[in-house]
Amino acid sequence: MADAVSERERKVLDIIETVRRKRPKFKDAAITMAHGAGGKATQTLIEGLFVPAFGSEAGAAMADAGAVGDDLAITTDSFVVSPLRFPGGSIGELAVNGTVNDLAVSGARPLALSLAMILEEGLDADTLRAEVDAIARAAAAAGVEIVAGDTKVVERGHADGMFLCTTGVGRRDPRATLSPAALRPGDRILVSGSIGEHGTAIMLARGEFDLAAEIESDTRSLWPAVDALLDAAGPELRCLRDATRGGVASVLNELARASGVAMIVNEAAVPVHPAVAGAAEILGIDPMYVANEGKLVAFVAPEGADAALAALRSFDEQAAEIGEVKTEPPGMVLVQTAFGGKRVMDQLVGDPLPRIC
Amino acid sequence: MADAVSERERKVLDIIETVRRKRPKFKDAAITMAHGAGGKATQTLIEGLFVPAFGSEAGAAMADAGAVGDDLAITTDSFVVSPLRFPGGSIGELAVNGTVNDLAVSGARPLALSLAMILEEGLDADTLRAEVDAIARAAAAAGVEIVAGDTKVVERGHADGMFLCTTGVGRRDPRATLSPAALRPGDRILVSGSIGEHGTAIMLARGEFDLAAEIESDTRSLWPAVDALLDAAGPELRCLRDATRGGVASVLNELARASGVAMIVNEAAVPVHPAVAGAAEILGIDPMYVANEGKLVAFVAPEGADAALAALRSFDEQAAEIGEVKTEPPGMVLVQTAFGGKRVMDQLVGDPLPRIC
Repeated sequence: MADAVSERERKVLDIIETVRRKRPKFKDAAITMAHGAGGKATQTLIEGLFVPAFGSEAGAAMADAGAVGDDLAITTDSFVVSPLRFPGGSIGELAVNGTVNDLAVSGARPLALSLAMILEEGLDADTLRAEVDAIARAAAAAGVEIVAGDTKVVERGHADGMFLCTTGVGRRDPRATLSPAALRPGDRILVSGSIGEHGTAIMLARGEFDLAAEIESDTRSLWPAVDALLDAAGPELRCLRDATRGGVASVLNELARASGVAMIVNEAAVPVHPAVAGAAEILGIDPMYVANEGKLVAFVAPEGADAALAALRSFDEQAAEIGEVKTEPPGMVLVQTAFGGKRVMDQLVGDPLPRIC
Repeated sequence: MADAVSERERKVLDIIETVRRKRPKFKDAAITMAHGAGGKATQTLIEGLFVPAFGSEAGAAMADAGAVGDDLAITTDSFVVSPLRFPGGSIGELAVNGTVNDLAVSGARPLALSLAMILEEGLDADTLRAEVDAIARAAAAAGVEIVAGDTKVVERGHADGMFLCTTGVGRRDPRATLSPAALRPGDRILVSGSIGEHGTAIMLARGEFDLAAEIESDTRSLWPAVDALLDAAGPELRCLRDATRGGVASVLNELARASGVAMIVNEAAVPVHPAVAGAAEILGIDPMYVANEGKLVAFVAPEGADAALAALRSFDEQAAEIGEVKTEPPGMVLVQTAFGGKRVMDQLVGDPLPRIC
């Protein structure tokens, strides 16, 4: 994982970087699926429209947890996953874990959730009952209370069964000093387990492809893993992220930009379940861009990396160190391929897997 | 406004009351528009499904603000109003004010909001821009910051332009000791202005009726009025409610049940804009059941009623005392009609005005 970049590569990268550094403008005439995919179009929407309107703190929080008062964090997410139930989980479970995990990776212990439901007229009552039950069980498992709620109903054909919105409040953990801008060259990049399972499970559950792999969503609360990380390597942790929409690749790109650093990922070290790798290959999708709902990426100072990895492995043997933070070229993520070459791992463009959460 | 009820009335009311006291069971086979109307079906959904699943505190909070930590209140609401823009406001403005008002009437000073958007593929970018602008302006006017956000996109035909979900966090005001179970016989019932304007404006904006009345939504932040009420009559305030879905009638019924008291409303004292009264008469709808988005109902101990009314009138000359809390028959709301008769003002059944917020 050397830092060496040839003169020719350097010039190409400089041009890419100049384009990239410009603040994105939101110029689209209409909303497309890509605006919800967590990649480039989403970022353009946030930086080009929301930040100017709501202020930079709010804009930053559109992708992270915001602050309330001295020690509380707040985060919100809506869930539009299709189908509502899939191997390994359902929209209700996802709505709890997704919001709990946003708090967890911001270094806040999840305390309470609010739940707003938009139901489509004609929704089967048993489907609703099953999701209410899934929400209650996931909340109990994650140790959070549902403390406020709301229900709206729209006419048949004006929604898609059920959309959920959960907002979480958590207390910032004093062991954490995490920031997306804290990454330094030399920091190690860890993932908490094998990647790409949630997105692959959803895609297969839709039955659009003639693939019958046994892949389950990895939806779960990440707080226990974060709690263990904070214990094992609190002061050495730079930043944590759950790798949902846009996958691990989007997390790496976002943080490389935010910290003005480069990253190099050792492709061979990235844990991918063989069934996920197989499905991805057939479908022509890179698992690095596929959503997870129970995996985090941890950026750790070198002296804390071993302890952090051991902490993650106590939850999941597949946890691995997958790369390192570098100096050059700032803002970019490179992959060291299994064949010894290097390529750029860019931001996600378009939305290969819509509505996975 | 006498308490006298004849022996025959008494028996009928006893029967109604027995039926009513039973905990509602959610037995419907499918979701109907009525489940989102804020009336009887919504209550059945909350008490019959959500309370057993999430616990009684959460269930109670489904219609109110929940508690986080010692002094914070949290409330959430999704917004599905159709059309997105209407005389006097738009979905973005409503999404801010609606959540700010839920905090305000729970006696909490609004601090921060989160915002989750579900956008339909193909939504015109200018429509989105206009709502982002409306949200930013309403948040600034209400003195709250947008501190977290999320955007999802669903395919064309799977949503209706735009749904918004706002969650608010506020700090409980030490001057307030409000509770839905605090009402006592003799308490006065105040409204902060003329009623039924929001729902009527939405209905007319849909153009389904050949009515051209000039009615604007009353959407606005109620915190300044609540702040003034807490100053003028803090210890005498029993409970506050914003009269949104289901209108003033639903607020009165909910609190009569929660406090085990009766209420009598003097119909002639209820302020209704002539254009609202006219539209309601033509459409066969009682303005007491029509939604407001900037009006509250205040229940005040008799010794604080004059000061509270004066405080409300400093914001809106139409503020009025409309009735009184009584002993008998517990859990019921009666109306003293303009002709001297009395009738029961029951909970809303069905949904005469869907998607007004």
